[in-house]
Amino acid sequence: MTSLHDTSVRGFASDNYSGIHPEVLAAITAANDGHQTAYGSDVYTARLQELVAEHFGAGAEAFPVFNGTGANVTALQSMLPRWGAVIAASTAHINVDEGGAPERVGGIKILNVPTADGKLTPDLIDREAWGWGDEHRAQPLVVSITQSTELGTIYTPDELRTIADHVHARGMRLHMDGARIANAAAALDLPLAAITRDVGVDVLSFGGTKNGAMIGEAIVVLDPAASEGLTYLRKLNMQLSSKMRFVSAQLVALLENDLWRRNAEHANGMAQRLRSSVEAGIADGSIRGVEFTQPTQANGVFAVLPEGVADRLRASFRFYDWDEAAREVRWMCSFDTSASDVDAFVAELGRLTAD
Amino acid sequence: MTSLHDTSVRGFASDNYSGIHPEVLAAITAANDGHQTAYGSDVYTARLQELVAEHFGAGAEAFPVFNGTGANVTALQSMLPRWGAVIAASTAHINVDEGGAPERVGGIKILNVPTADGKLTPDLIDREAWGWGDEHRAQPLVVSITQSTELGTIYTPDELRTIADHVHARGMRLHMDGARIANAAAALDLPLAAITRDVGVDVLSFGGTKNGAMIGEAIVVLDPAASEGLTYLRKLNMQLSSKMRFVSAQLVALLENDLWRRNAEHANGMAQRLRSSVEAGIADGSIRGVEFTQPTQANGVFAVLPEGVADRLRASFRFYDWDEAAREVRWMCSFDTSASDVDAFVAELGRLTAD
Amino acid sequence: MTSLHDTSVRGFASDNYSGIHPEVLAAITAANDGHQTAYGSDVYTARLQELVAEHFGAGAEAFPVFNGTGANVTALQSMLPRWGAVIAASTAHINVDEGGAPERVGGIKILNVPTADGKLTPDLIDREAWGWGDEHRAQPLVVSITQSTELGTIYTPDELRTIADHVHARGMRLHMDGARIANAAAALDLPLAAITRDVGVDVLSFGGTKNGAMIGEAIVVLDPAASEGLTYLRKLNMQLSSKMRFVSAQLVALLENDLWRRNAEHANGMAQRLRSSVEAGIADGSIRGVEFTQPTQANGVFAVLPEGVADRLRASFRFYDWDEAAREVRWMCSFDTSASDVDAFVAELGRLTAD
Amino acid sequence: MTSLHDTSVRGFASDNYSGIHPEVLAAITAANDGHQTAYGSDVYTARLQELVAEHFGAGAEAFPVFNGTGANVTALQSMLPRWGAVIAASTAHINVDEGGAPERVGGIKILNVPTADGKLTPDLIDREAWGWGDEHRAQPLVVSITQSTELGTIYTPDELRTIADHVHARGMRLHMDGARIANAAAALDLPLAAITRDVGVDVLSFGGTKNGAMIGEAIVVLDPAASEGLTYLRKLNMQLSSKMRFVSAQLVALLENDLWRRNAEHANGMAQRLRSSVEAGIADGSIRGVEFTQPTQANGVFAVLPEGVADRLRASFRFYDWDEAAREVRWMCSFDTSASDVDAFVAELGRLTAD
Repeated sequence: MTSLHDTSVRGFASDNYSGIHPEVLAAITAANDGHQTAYGSDVYTARLQELVAEHFGAGAEAFPVFNGTGANVTALQSMLPRWGAVIAASTAHINVDEGGAPERVGGIKILNVPTADGKLTPDLIDREAWGWGDEHRAQPLVVSITQSTELGTIYTPDELRTIADHVHARGMRLHMDGARIANAAAALDLPLAAITRDVGVDVLSFGGTKNGAMIGEAIVVLDPAASEGLTYLRKLNMQLSSKMRFVSAQLVALLENDLWRRNAEHANGMAQRLRSSVEAGIADGSIRGVEFTQPTQANGVFAVLPEGVADRLRASFRFYDWDEAAREVRWMCSFDTSASDVDAFVAELGRLTAD
Repeated sequence: MTSLHDTSVRGFASDNYSGIHPEVLAAITAANDGHQTAYGSDVYTARLQELVAEHFGAGAEAFPVFNGTGANVTALQSMLPRWGAVIAASTAHINVDEGGAPERVGGIKILNVPTADGKLTPDLIDREAWGWGDEHRAQPLVVSITQSTELGTIYTPDELRTIADHVHARGMRLHMDGARIANAAAALDLPLAAITRDVGVDVLSFGGTKNGAMIGEAIVVLDPAASEGLTYLRKLNMQLSSKMRFVSAQLVALLENDLWRRNAEHANGMAQRLRSSVEAGIADGSIRGVEFTQPTQANGVFAVLPEGVADRLRASFRFYDWDEAAREVRWMCSFDTSASDVDAFVAELGRLTAD
Repeated sequence: MTSLHDTSVRGFASDNYSGIHPEVLAAITAANDGHQTAYGSDVYTARLQELVAEHFGAGAEAFPVFNGTGANVTALQSMLPRWGAVIAASTAHINVDEGGAPERVGGIKILNVPTADGKLTPDLIDREAWGWGDEHRAQPLVVSITQSTELGTIYTPDELRTIADHVHARGMRLHMDGARIANAAAALDLPLAAITRDVGVDVLSFGGTKNGAMIGEAIVVLDPAASEGLTYLRKLNMQLSSKMRFVSAQLVALLENDLWRRNAEHANGMAQRLRSSVEAGIADGSIRGVEFTQPTQANGVFAVLPEGVADRLRASFRFYDWDEAAREVRWMCSFDTSASDVDAFVAELGRLTAD
Repeated sequence: MTSLHDTSVRGFASDNYSGIHPEVLAAITAANDGHQTAYGSDVYTARLQELVAEHFGAGAEAFPVFNGTGANVTALQSMLPRWGAVIAASTAHINVDEGGAPERVGGIKILNVPTADGKLTPDLIDREAWGWGDEHRAQPLVVSITQSTELGTIYTPDELRTIADHVHARGMRLHMDGARIANAAAALDLPLAAITRDVGVDVLSFGGTKNGAMIGEAIVVLDPAASEGLTYLRKLNMQLSSKMRFVSAQLVALLENDLWRRNAEHANGMAQRLRSSVEAGIADGSIRGVEFTQPTQANGVFAVLPEGVADRLRASFRFYDWDEAAREVRWMCSFDTSASDVDAFVAELGRLTAD
């Protein structure tokens, strides 16, 4: 098969519009040939466990799965009895972007709380953290936070620790949706453990796909007492790969040699470049009528555009509306976004807003 | 990352112990670089649809998914109301090997029927095909058959047509678990359509992984009237790949240039070589005490070994017990099994049974 | 067995703290003796269907079930595909009081919207009525409203018609949780059809238990095109009574001779008496520091009490905190609440607030 | 409401075609009037707990529910993790008569085993008791037996003890579907504890409805370590009655003064009378061509009739086909079956088979 697409075209729609990082593809190739035991008893999955222990601390255990929804739903199920509920931000991926899988497949009620920036706080958590022992209420036993958030913001280690302590003090457990945890750790210039295990996260959905993998995420159990039955639940939830060596090899590639950090730093840097360039354009008048709605802390930029600009800009670059009524858009950068992509994009934005 | 395993070691445990066929890996590479729309609106998934129409007939539609359990459960859900049941052979993968996913995730009752060879017949189907309209009985509305079966046997086109007519005459629909459909079509020397759409199969789980893919299966809807809501169900069941271009590219590689058939013919041929060689050994006395329990029609060989032989043979070659109490074992061949693998295996079997 | 409780004690905790209305108990007795076909093919269920047609219009069909949660979850499931979601007020019983049954048993995501008074409006509905065709979003295909609401308020027929038109114009269906529909119809002095079928409600959970029955509710399908498979879903959801004649007989008793209206008018009247008496006490200074938080339109009164009063008042009369932090309480009246109950309660409230 | 049916007509269709025993109806009446706390915090439920402790031993705890399917599914869920399976006879009510509720609502796979007489044995259990630790197999962690069975047969205390020991030795738990446990205890002339707790049953579905109640069953937890979360699961599974006092009062009536035993002895006696009379008729030639397919140990009689007789007999008496192809029918007796009912039935059978 030959390539069917123009491999030079990139946009700002999503970090999952990107492809496979060359080092990840090389790892898939290295893991190929010969036979390996299916379903996870292979040397690449064993190597992944070593790396997970290095990055997250001894005892941390990884369960490779196919995708983020699979990681989140399976992780949460393993943390909850059948009558459990999860407190999450209204904007959380599990609440708005998983097609009801947490509810239908997981059997989990999501108690969602509106936030300004996608981040929960102890006060926001407490709006739904009540009613334990009352059988009429789905029992709030897990809090799920996203790092970096769906709005491109980041929890600081202090904020995380405060949340974890608050959650644990109420007998609940803390789950982190880390589809973009690499971006958060890179932005904070911290190791992965510093914003997960060290601050009290119990179970993590570790994202690989948005960070340069082809297909691959992992549930990482940081406190074994917080999770039960993942081996069975992963199979039951149809997230068990037969040729798992190839999922694990991708994650190994990301975790070895800090590829995860290099990729995330690059994506974050491109978002910063985009933000700064637009801000500079606003300052010097070359870009008009554009406002930002969230700080740019990771690899996403959220902005409000003048009427009509979004669709004309999309003629050249793919990106999504975030809140169409408010003319808010989302621009995502990924490991393969280039400086020239950003510069061309900003130039076009200037041209269109100058009209 | 460098290779961590001995790439020259192969066994007879399962066709999913094998790796990625080089042409499939080349297709993944060809699909890489640049941005493509996530979740299936990419050119590789479009190309897959063309090939599916070529192989299965105009109007056939493919929904790429991650794995076989995901394909089966999602396909069956799309064919059934919430109160539906599936009639299947007791040995069916959905009944014994999917960890209860059809029941828990799919909400589907499986009405299973014992068979001699893994194959249903109209009479066997009728043991459970009754009770429509009675709300106390989960409604049998789909029959699921496996081609080739979990016992290495194959339905002929006539048998399939008879079953499909029988099933349809009772107002039911026919699902085929085609995790190894390539092996069946290759063994019968028929195109894929001839044992699916042309004989009345409504929805097919089309297997890629066991046929040389890395991660990739597809639900193929052959009669659109038999399936509803697959777009939503695939997401809901956590089987929607964000970077779907890479799943589709693998399936494209298999369907282009008849790679699927070449791989299957090779695997089937190796199973035949294994069977014939052992039979020859039995005939000439160089192999003793070995009996076959099923015909070898696809890529699996089922045999009963003398006491103690299985474990000693496993010291050199991986394979699974099928019915431990009966000393029945299963030997699977795959696209990468070599003639010398088979010959070495048979030689060792001879050595061990001669003791 | 003799009576084990003081049958003269009544409180204001809930309309389901009350017992069985004598006419309902007489109906149970009348339906007793001899054999009747189980599971609904009995003459009392047939009679119920006649009465349902009388009260709701020809073609309306009743499915007796055990309780309100069973009625709601089963009704909603019958109105939704597996990927469906329900828009409801945040305060809706299905959202806060059913232990997660809609999510876990029904597989339904609830898209909840905060309201001031428990009532949805077209604008409030539109906050969640979007995203059709996007598989990442649980599909909003049903709106569920409660009449009278959990806050004791009532939708007018005009409000209902406006909502129904709005819902239908968007291709959605309208469900009404009518656990207290009798109270609403009585308060509006309208027949049941006037606030259900005539204004566009598609499926109704018709409440019997809070209206004087022992155990008995019914799903009433007003538009047969809006609901599918209730016969099977009722069984599947464990809501099918074997001796259904006794459930149906209770509902027959309520619908015959307008017992439903008499019971509801009485309960509403007692709530009005309570409200007026307290208002009079506030006006003449005999009751101090009490404020109302909702209009009293049905049989519930919502008030804020001075610090410490609630618990002291509960020494004599049972009732529930509604929002403990805000010192808001709920006082419910039922078919058996007496004027002297109310008067004694108000007197005690005066005594306690005068302290 | 007046009676709408002929209260003198009774048949042999099912013990749930019967009505309410007068003592049970009196108990409902005695529990009426005044207010009682909803959802189980009432004096009748408290009294039920005392009686359950008397009949089943200290520490046994009852959870009243609405119906048998609700009792079974909820009990089994409380005994199993999400990945659990139940071993049961193929003829078990949970396998054939609950519309798939165990699978869809409970998420439970049933591993069913054919039996001759509806009774499991250690050998039969072992056909499915394997595969622990293998995530591809739904984990067999509970065995469910029915006492008396769906085929009218009874486990002796020795058989039960042997099964319980076998089950426990394999790390599994034992559930008993006791929809007709009263009939079994009465037939064996033993207290309820002697065939449940004393022989190792962990959780019991205690049947009231078929024994003379209107609506009422209870999950009885005999070993608290075998069950978790019933309070929540009962609500979640929509089996929590608001006016629970009336469910409990019915069960109290059955357990007080041994009404349960009197009712069961009567029903069993009528089945014996039916069996003996037919046997006598066969012996003296007044009944021809009738054969029995099961021993008559409880209140059901299973027989094969000559061609055409069943439908003609049904013109006068309701009963069900059991295996239509084999001309096998089931005749059930209940607490209100009279000797003259039986005699008239046998006379008619003689008349029809003599033709």
